[in-house]
Amino acid sequence: MSDTSQTHIITAHCPSQPGTVDVVTRYLYQQGFYINEIHSFDDTDVNHFFIRIQFRPNNEQPFDLALFEREFNERASAFNMQWQLASSAYKAKVVIMVSKHDHCLNDLLYRYRTGDLAIEIPAIISNHPDLEALAKWHGIPYYHLPISKDTKPEQEAQVWQIIQDSKADLVVLARYMQVLSNEMCQKLSGKAINIHHSLLPGFKGARPYYQAYDRGVKLVGATAHYVSDDLDEGPIISQGVETVDHSYYPKDLAAKGRDIECLTLSRAVRCHIEHRIFLHQKKTVVFAK
Amino acid sequence: MSDTSQTHIITAHCPSQPGTVDVVTRYLYQQGFYINEIHSFDDTDVNHFFIRIQFRPNNEQPFDLALFEREFNERASAFNMQWQLASSAYKAKVVIMVSKHDHCLNDLLYRYRTGDLAIEIPAIISNHPDLEALAKWHGIPYYHLPISKDTKPEQEAQVWQIIQDSKADLVVLARYMQVLSNEMCQKLSGKAINIHHSLLPGFKGARPYYQAYDRGVKLVGATAHYVSDDLDEGPIISQGVETVDHSYYPKDLAAKGRDIECLTLSRAVRCHIEHRIFLHQKKTVVFAK
Amino acid sequence: MSDTSQTHIITAHCPSQPGTVDVVTRYLYQQGFYINEIHSFDDTDVNHFFIRIQFRPNNEQPFDLALFEREFNERASAFNMQWQLASSAYKAKVVIMVSKHDHCLNDLLYRYRTGDLAIEIPAIISNHPDLEALAKWHGIPYYHLPISKDTKPEQEAQVWQIIQDSKADLVVLARYMQVLSNEMCQKLSGKAINIHHSLLPGFKGARPYYQAYDRGVKLVGATAHYVSDDLDEGPIISQGVETVDHSYYPKDLAAKGRDIECLTLSRAVRCHIEHRIFLHQKKTVVFAK
Amino acid sequence: MSDTSQTHIITAHCPSQPGTVDVVTRYLYQQGFYINEIHSFDDTDVNHFFIRIQFRPNNEQPFDLALFEREFNERASAFNMQWQLASSAYKAKVVIMVSKHDHCLNDLLYRYRTGDLAIEIPAIISNHPDLEALAKWHGIPYYHLPISKDTKPEQEAQVWQIIQDSKADLVVLARYMQVLSNEMCQKLSGKAINIHHSLLPGFKGARPYYQAYDRGVKLVGATAHYVSDDLDEGPIISQGVETVDHSYYPKDLAAKGRDIECLTLSRAVRCHIEHRIFLHQKKTVVFAK
Repeated sequence: MSDTSQTHIITAHCPSQPGTVDVVTRYLYQQGFYINEIHSFDDTDVNHFFIRIQFRPNNEQPFDLALFEREFNERASAFNMQWQLASSAYKAKVVIMVSKHDHCLNDLLYRYRTGDLAIEIPAIISNHPDLEALAKWHGIPYYHLPISKDTKPEQEAQVWQIIQDSKADLVVLARYMQVLSNEMCQKLSGKAINIHHSLLPGFKGARPYYQAYDRGVKLVGATAHYVSDDLDEGPIISQGVETVDHSYYPKDLAAKGRDIECLTLSRAVRCHIEHRIFLHQKKTVVFAK
Repeated sequence: MSDTSQTHIITAHCPSQPGTVDVVTRYLYQQGFYINEIHSFDDTDVNHFFIRIQFRPNNEQPFDLALFEREFNERASAFNMQWQLASSAYKAKVVIMVSKHDHCLNDLLYRYRTGDLAIEIPAIISNHPDLEALAKWHGIPYYHLPISKDTKPEQEAQVWQIIQDSKADLVVLARYMQVLSNEMCQKLSGKAINIHHSLLPGFKGARPYYQAYDRGVKLVGATAHYVSDDLDEGPIISQGVETVDHSYYPKDLAAKGRDIECLTLSRAVRCHIEHRIFLHQKKTVVFAK
Repeated sequence: MSDTSQTHIITAHCPSQPGTVDVVTRYLYQQGFYINEIHSFDDTDVNHFFIRIQFRPNNEQPFDLALFEREFNERASAFNMQWQLASSAYKAKVVIMVSKHDHCLNDLLYRYRTGDLAIEIPAIISNHPDLEALAKWHGIPYYHLPISKDTKPEQEAQVWQIIQDSKADLVVLARYMQVLSNEMCQKLSGKAINIHHSLLPGFKGARPYYQAYDRGVKLVGATAHYVSDDLDEGPIISQGVETVDHSYYPKDLAAKGRDIECLTLSRAVRCHIEHRIFLHQKKTVVFAK
Repeated sequence: MSDTSQTHIITAHCPSQPGTVDVVTRYLYQQGFYINEIHSFDDTDVNHFFIRIQFRPNNEQPFDLALFEREFNERASAFNMQWQLASSAYKAKVVIMVSKHDHCLNDLLYRYRTGDLAIEIPAIISNHPDLEALAKWHGIPYYHLPISKDTKPEQEAQVWQIIQDSKADLVVLARYMQVLSNEMCQKLSGKAINIHHSLLPGFKGARPYYQAYDRGVKLVGATAHYVSDDLDEGPIISQGVETVDHSYYPKDLAAKGRDIECLTLSRAVRCHIEHRIFLHQKKTVVFAK
């Protein structure tokens, strides 16, 4: 949240071995960069190493991206390291998909318009017309793309076109109540976040608040996860929870759940756009603030 | 937590209909009782009414239990009301069953010896000898009843004998790592509380912390529930939860989980002995403080 | 959250004595009302009794308010009981006061326009012009009433006029960054809720997030309280909290705090409009859902 | 919680400047150490840098402490860096001071005897005789050192003697209900942790649960902090909190608070013995797991 105009973020991961920290920090030091923040994790279970460093030039010199890539790539390849560089000033392009429930959309739009989430929203896509006014008030194009069993491939093609045209960095399913096709899931792998209104793996599938009510739980929660072709089994990013009791009928659970969904989803989106998440196999490493 | 020597608790439930509150409060008033605390719940989903009232005599007159039963029963039967009366001063007899993990046992024993839980513990039963010293230091008989596939019926008979001999009001499975037979579960129906180290219905069955680790959850929790013959499907009484992240290996989840288990189980036990729980069909109504 | 068209709420309080529950429940029963929900509290410290009952007619008969008042008043006066009757269907008129920070306003407006909070908002008053567009989009009159040391009495007179003209049941200071005069506080006693962005009594006064930063706290929170003429000493209604660490600068505390403020304030407003709060001396009794 | 027999922890801090990360990681790499875990924080407010690295030898070579100190000191001094090296296998010697309340002591002893906290407890000191049996059962020497206004200097001298004789690394005031003299506080600076039963800075001083009750708070909490000569103003390490309502009298707050105190204090002790805390001016940097 400091001045980000000059700040960059490098994220990298590779098989565990000695020197993985040094290879990154050394290069940054040699180039005269100042390290603001460093997070790393060495997963001793799968022997994999993850690092995220936020840094800035220590002087007035302009950042030479091409040089950085050329020089650092050499060092990284010796470690089989995959890496990415991003500018903190870059505003991620986020396409939001939604159906009729507007609480998550409304929350994301508020954070967008106040700058709490430093994002651009090139498009809002919905299978219903209901939320167009909200989109319009924020000056965001709204695409009403109805869907039926028969038109699904066609509709998904349209959705995909919009995602591509808007050069979206991230797709957020903010209570989009349609199951994406496997093909679509694969295209969006690691680039789409869904909010599911239960504490996964509890209450997968449809109507989780009704399922929770029937089971008589004393906690209600929500889970933000990357979309995968195995429904509600995608890698978990964040989870939120609140206490409830016997007096909560499904609509009461849903009401309390709405606040949890908003907080849980926006936290996941923030972590993603700040490059704090590594998706590795079926799990995530999240260097949350 | 006030002076309980004179305080009584009436709990009652019946099909919903007008007058269910009045039939109880009116009688208490007529008999000169003073109501300290009243909780009720009218479940509009199953049309069932639940009430719990804590009251005390308003004068020096001794409490005439027989009279109360006779007089109130008449009134209650007009409502098909099932009811129970208990003295707040009565200390419930709680038999604790345990295997090798001692954190829940230790926690319950601490609350027992300091009076935080107003209970008696006539027996601790274990399929292992390990925790005898802890039991002895608290002056509580420890029954080491090993179990194998072949000896299970016999062992359970011994367990049942101890439960009966000690006139136990409640059996607490404080990390007793054996599945009870269906027969035993039925005998203990509504009188046995188990702590499961996950947020049910997530991660039923064996080694929930390993399951949670594999799924990459961002919350770890525990569930206290009444024992039923459908494993880990018993009515939930209380649940607890804490945040975790990618750096938690199963043993770290277990370490964090231990504190949650203790708090969640002791809360359930407290609610049970204070007659704050109604077990209705597959769910509970809990008038928690 | 059930059908409220026929539901009423009675709230009452009086000095503690036997029969306080019975006098209310008996009358409701005699009149053929059905009790949906009952909460009571007998404060043994100050010997005062509080009760809230939600009830509905058990038949098609129209509710005769005048009769109720006449008949019940007689009974209540024998207990020195102060009481109020309200229809669940009535939408409280809430005037919102705000300065430049819009997060609480935005949250309240969302809950208003979706019906999550069953209120009307006849006016939004601000000492700044900034939030007019937001008000307009919701079709709510926005009164820009600037304030300076010299114009304070005059400005407060205008505010008071709007409150009276709109027949406001409640005034919500949703980050209104002006200290009200004692006179204004007294006029609004029990009818105005403020959100303070700290865990009172910690960090009273100005810039609480900076105070919290300087003290190095590990939790950040917010407090909703009734306005009183003793600044930040008003009766507390609800408090919320989240964990933070050393890496949170004041603006990070403020960012995290915004979510807590919204949740804490909306919870207080909900409790107030549902008649769940009793203001007694310097404290509140809150029968929260 | 992995095998710690070979693991070491280096903690270091210095004024912020480029190269502070590199100077540490580079040396570790050159010496063939493997980095398990790295945390750092660059405080842009006071321009100070903090780093903690957990590492282990990458081969069978024994750790040459003298060599490390000589070589690294040279590098560190160029950065004005203060640093410390510790073996993860070392068990910190913790002296516990207590009065009559035993919940925190009991909790710490449980974690000690199960190895959850890898500590030694050479002495328990109390101004009351009450908790001797508990100490004895754990085989720990118990020093009953009564205190009065007149004998305070003398008693503190005895306390100090025990702390020195036992070579204590840490003193934990586990509800020791005496105010230490300024002299004693200074001797113990950075080496003594106190648990205060409120959310500081709210409710400093005596009887915080009574203060909290009088103020009508809706949250109750506890604060673990380093002891300083400014009472209840010491640097905060950890804070815990739970929701309460109007029905909590002071003894109910105390009962709920006991659990919070135990969790908050043990978390602070764990962070301290794992060298996760930097005490800087009046605040702490805590690299908590």
